[in-house]
Amino acid sequence: MGLDFGTLPTGKFNAITDVPGVTVGHVSLIRGQGRLIPGQGPVRTGITAILPHGGNLYTRKCPAAVFPFNGYGKSIGMMYIEELGICENPILITNSLSVGAALEGGIDWVLQHNPGVGISERTPNISVYECDDGYLNDIRGRHVHPEHAWQAIATATGGQVPEGNVGAGVGMSTFAYKSGVGTCSRIVNNSLGTWTLGVLMVCNFGQRKDLIIKGIPFGRMFPVKENETPSNGNSNITIIATDAPLTCSQLKCLAKRPQLGLSRVGGISRWGSGDIDMVISNYPWIHPKAQPQIMDNAMFLDPFIEAVVDASEEACLNALFQAKTMIGVDNHVRKKLPVEQIMACLR
Amino acid sequence: MGLDFGTLPTGKFNAITDVPGVTVGHVSLIRGQGRLIPGQGPVRTGITAILPHGGNLYTRKCPAAVFPFNGYGKSIGMMYIEELGICENPILITNSLSVGAALEGGIDWVLQHNPGVGISERTPNISVYECDDGYLNDIRGRHVHPEHAWQAIATATGGQVPEGNVGAGVGMSTFAYKSGVGTCSRIVNNSLGTWTLGVLMVCNFGQRKDLIIKGIPFGRMFPVKENETPSNGNSNITIIATDAPLTCSQLKCLAKRPQLGLSRVGGISRWGSGDIDMVISNYPWIHPKAQPQIMDNAMFLDPFIEAVVDASEEACLNALFQAKTMIGVDNHVRKKLPVEQIMACLR
Amino acid sequence: MGLDFGTLPTGKFNAITDVPGVTVGHVSLIRGQGRLIPGQGPVRTGITAILPHGGNLYTRKCPAAVFPFNGYGKSIGMMYIEELGICENPILITNSLSVGAALEGGIDWVLQHNPGVGISERTPNISVYECDDGYLNDIRGRHVHPEHAWQAIATATGGQVPEGNVGAGVGMSTFAYKSGVGTCSRIVNNSLGTWTLGVLMVCNFGQRKDLIIKGIPFGRMFPVKENETPSNGNSNITIIATDAPLTCSQLKCLAKRPQLGLSRVGGISRWGSGDIDMVISNYPWIHPKAQPQIMDNAMFLDPFIEAVVDASEEACLNALFQAKTMIGVDNHVRKKLPVEQIMACLR
Amino acid sequence: MGLDFGTLPTGKFNAITDVPGVTVGHVSLIRGQGRLIPGQGPVRTGITAILPHGGNLYTRKCPAAVFPFNGYGKSIGMMYIEELGICENPILITNSLSVGAALEGGIDWVLQHNPGVGISERTPNISVYECDDGYLNDIRGRHVHPEHAWQAIATATGGQVPEGNVGAGVGMSTFAYKSGVGTCSRIVNNSLGTWTLGVLMVCNFGQRKDLIIKGIPFGRMFPVKENETPSNGNSNITIIATDAPLTCSQLKCLAKRPQLGLSRVGGISRWGSGDIDMVISNYPWIHPKAQPQIMDNAMFLDPFIEAVVDASEEACLNALFQAKTMIGVDNHVRKKLPVEQIMACLR
Repeated sequence: MGLDFGTLPTGKFNAITDVPGVTVGHVSLIRGQGRLIPGQGPVRTGITAILPHGGNLYTRKCPAAVFPFNGYGKSIGMMYIEELGICENPILITNSLSVGAALEGGIDWVLQHNPGVGISERTPNISVYECDDGYLNDIRGRHVHPEHAWQAIATATGGQVPEGNVGAGVGMSTFAYKSGVGTCSRIVNNSLGTWTLGVLMVCNFGQRKDLIIKGIPFGRMFPVKENETPSNGNSNITIIATDAPLTCSQLKCLAKRPQLGLSRVGGISRWGSGDIDMVISNYPWIHPKAQPQIMDNAMFLDPFIEAVVDASEEACLNALFQAKTMIGVDNHVRKKLPVEQIMACLR
Repeated sequence: MGLDFGTLPTGKFNAITDVPGVTVGHVSLIRGQGRLIPGQGPVRTGITAILPHGGNLYTRKCPAAVFPFNGYGKSIGMMYIEELGICENPILITNSLSVGAALEGGIDWVLQHNPGVGISERTPNISVYECDDGYLNDIRGRHVHPEHAWQAIATATGGQVPEGNVGAGVGMSTFAYKSGVGTCSRIVNNSLGTWTLGVLMVCNFGQRKDLIIKGIPFGRMFPVKENETPSNGNSNITIIATDAPLTCSQLKCLAKRPQLGLSRVGGISRWGSGDIDMVISNYPWIHPKAQPQIMDNAMFLDPFIEAVVDASEEACLNALFQAKTMIGVDNHVRKKLPVEQIMACLR
Repeated sequence: MGLDFGTLPTGKFNAITDVPGVTVGHVSLIRGQGRLIPGQGPVRTGITAILPHGGNLYTRKCPAAVFPFNGYGKSIGMMYIEELGICENPILITNSLSVGAALEGGIDWVLQHNPGVGISERTPNISVYECDDGYLNDIRGRHVHPEHAWQAIATATGGQVPEGNVGAGVGMSTFAYKSGVGTCSRIVNNSLGTWTLGVLMVCNFGQRKDLIIKGIPFGRMFPVKENETPSNGNSNITIIATDAPLTCSQLKCLAKRPQLGLSRVGGISRWGSGDIDMVISNYPWIHPKAQPQIMDNAMFLDPFIEAVVDASEEACLNALFQAKTMIGVDNHVRKKLPVEQIMACLR
Repeated sequence: MGLDFGTLPTGKFNAITDVPGVTVGHVSLIRGQGRLIPGQGPVRTGITAILPHGGNLYTRKCPAAVFPFNGYGKSIGMMYIEELGICENPILITNSLSVGAALEGGIDWVLQHNPGVGISERTPNISVYECDDGYLNDIRGRHVHPEHAWQAIATATGGQVPEGNVGAGVGMSTFAYKSGVGTCSRIVNNSLGTWTLGVLMVCNFGQRKDLIIKGIPFGRMFPVKENETPSNGNSNITIIATDAPLTCSQLKCLAKRPQLGLSRVGGISRWGSGDIDMVISNYPWIHPKAQPQIMDNAMFLDPFIEAVVDASEEACLNALFQAKTMIGVDNHVRKKLPVEQIMACLR
């Protein structure tokens, strides 16, 4: 887009998959059109899986942290992460009423790959995050099934990550424009080495009037028209991955910052918003000899804080810029952001 | 039992159902015996539902609070309660790998009774709590299904509450003895009126050596025998209900105290224990004109704190005293507490 | 300044004192120049007091909340507010090493006005917030004394509030420019009435390169020169007052948002930053018949969230625009923001 | 006493000073008698300092955690510990209105030993904990001065630790009996080595009727007489030190458990109680080559949890058993626990 999001360089794909070992899988469910018949459709939803590394996640656990900036939401699995500071499962994102199906699919995956679980070993924690796509999707139909979670996990790959109307982002809206999945990455160099931090976001928040880009209140310049009623959904899920050797306390510090990037595009975390941020580091498996810097953090952690804020602002705009206009249940329309007009104005 | 658990009187049934409006439903799943064949059995599990009142819980929300004393566990739905201080669903308790099925059943229930949910209204939060019954139960088989959650909700009643090997308690152990569900209640009189507080607990924690009753270290007097290996489960779920007009901040204060009662029977909340406590008040629907005392709490709240600690100690012992010896997967045996010997010693 | 900070109207003075009953007192300590002689000077510091209402604060307590967005800092008195949701004292802000003196002065004030405290009544909580002004001030000299706290409290008034180099803001810097105290206000109309929300901020954070105004990265346009070394201080204190009938849980929601406004001017809450936000409502004493809306918050609370974000952005810029160049210890210079150049660029 | 507090062995002195490097200093202030003349006396108070190791605490920081089980109280310095997981100062305990003086004395100590603080280095965090000794002491007189804090720090030593009416414990009461300072220790052996954990407690909580020892409700057997009115104080400060290589997340787990030990003697953490628990490990300076076990905690951490619960129960009883009857302001009397009668009954 040619916009300026801080001074840190991006990774090769400008995606969360730039973090060595991290893969992403999307399953998109799009079928039917016209009148909403709960249970039948139209279907505009999906599920996204993020895998911290390619090994067995249950046995090769990763340091992790989670922060619910605003805890209105039905995401699950955060308590365990908060208590223990570990992630031991594929991270899943889907719609608000499909959390149970995603959980079942996630458990299927862990049981299949770990025959001792529940017998000689403890049971797994699965974290599933959600946004409400009910403005475009027959959300009551719960069209995401456990096998879609499995499929998203099984097909996760590195490299380029599709953005916009894919996976969990299929039915999501932001500022009453179509949005969905956005991702980007930053490279941090410090005295210990070169590290990557990547962000993947599912954006589904805000009123039209909130939208700001680079200080310009576009939301107020393009007010909502009569037939573009706001959705009843309001949430933002941010998953951050890095290969830097950070403790879970340092990851917690990062988990508080995505909302600072979102604020720069107008996100104010309204009362009914489920704004949940999770951060993992896969360093123990990618850089087994690395040791976190525990006691002196200022020089060490600040560049990662910059990376989180800058990348969160960019990832949200990527979701908006990459999404396409979509027509959903009862012919509800979510238009694409007027990119031409906005870019003209920004220049 | 003739034991002394504080000075407050109990309610009529000495059960959580003494709280006006509160009902409890259990579905117990017990079938098969002998060798564990994952997916087939033997089955020793179940699900318990607690309904704060008889009305539509989604539209008639209750003040609520939750406190994870030790957050090792896979219970879900707490973030929303923590953020908003409300309970809007039947509270469900089951085994660790059936949380997804219980969630699905809970959503079924809400969707069925609220046709606008996900269309004109927001989506519901469902809180499901869990313990690991894998020592006796084919937990990998996930034998609890959404319809069992529905059934537990639909059959919930007041009055006497079965304890021990029922509902979510079927496969649970405490101090390497058979335990399960325990409940009791207390009456609090204050200047504003007469109020009931009830506790229902699913107990599944502790090593044998931890057990203490009334200061006597019975656990060390009755060490574990060779064939009574400890389970890999370690959790305690405490649900507290009251009709007293308490704010969610006051309920949060109560939610921190059950572990103090459990400590008196030897619970120390070991590292791998999911010790989660939820408290609701149904006063807005049972006593619609009552107003909480907000600013001066000392005289007002202390009797409820006493009630929580005393009732938590008693509920755990009720679970132990009421449970019967059970044989589960691979002929694992959990013996009943040696009640005769213990009572003799206590006298 | 002619800049656009959202759509809500401001109060008469565009200051926290627009909230009925709220008063502010500043004591500024500026003396000496040249070489730093610890204990002697030069002195560039002060203390600011904010009183929620004109009555006895200890007996007429206010609902309150506090949120440490980043808890690096030595502010005190937050635990009590977090536990109880009440403010019972004059709110004080000073430098990091004068917290003890401010606390002593605050206790003096409460003891003097409440003869039963510590005898027939409990002891008071005093919350004191701090930033590190050591780049300009002989902070080791601890030149703020208890009597300065008393004086700030005793001289607090309504109406116009001095900004920039006054009170606790005397020695503070932001983005390596001189800043200090900033304040502003917003009016919220809703179905229950017309309410005022005011913000007072002491700004002392950020690296030069972080500064953004209305999307333009001025910080990178005006890099730090050799003789403008960054301070070792990094903090931001935000005090929010309102007369709207909000519960302490709703105030907590607001306490999380100031950092969203600060992010729009470039604040990223670096690792070593003490970013603490306190919110009080004086409605019980200003509007004794008002009742908070407890169960349905979306329509009710969102305008206050907007007010907090917009006002926090503006208050920080007010602090920067109103401050004047200051020379401190060892002839350290903090220049005024180049307002002319910035305004020219913004137009 | 011959009572049984778990199965772990104690250290040589059964005191917090059994932890290598840990020292304790008490300053006791006892003068005057008869009628309370605020500002003059009688004085029944003091201050206690605990030093994690003998080196410069500001430059040789220790992993630490803090947990306010019930945050009614005016203790300070916890936010920084919560955010960063470090202790960098002598830990101080005193009466509720002398927190400011203790803070000033603590800062004096750090400034004196660190000439760069506030100039080239950041400012220190000082944590000061408090209980209300106003039933026996002229607490409004604020008789603890900064030099008493200095003196407590400067005179801290290892070996035997005086208990009962000393230091911060001089004026404290528990269950309306005289109590004060209590301490004890436990030895934990595991595959990594042999470690010591010590507890020092200042006890000042509970109503008479709450007292339980080894399951026997002595409080109800010895009701309060007319002239033994309960104090308005209610708090318990627990400081735990260990040389075991624990992360701050593991220390946080321990910081939640002292209340479980206190529950066994009848502590229920009443609404107005400031029950604050701090845990530090000095392993980086005592065992510089030790590495914490980060990922698998069950086997590793559980013995330390046992140690905390058992030692907390014992430390509280030590405070009660070691204290002597004291007469304070207005001839208020706090009697010694009737040790003979209790021991007779327990046998």
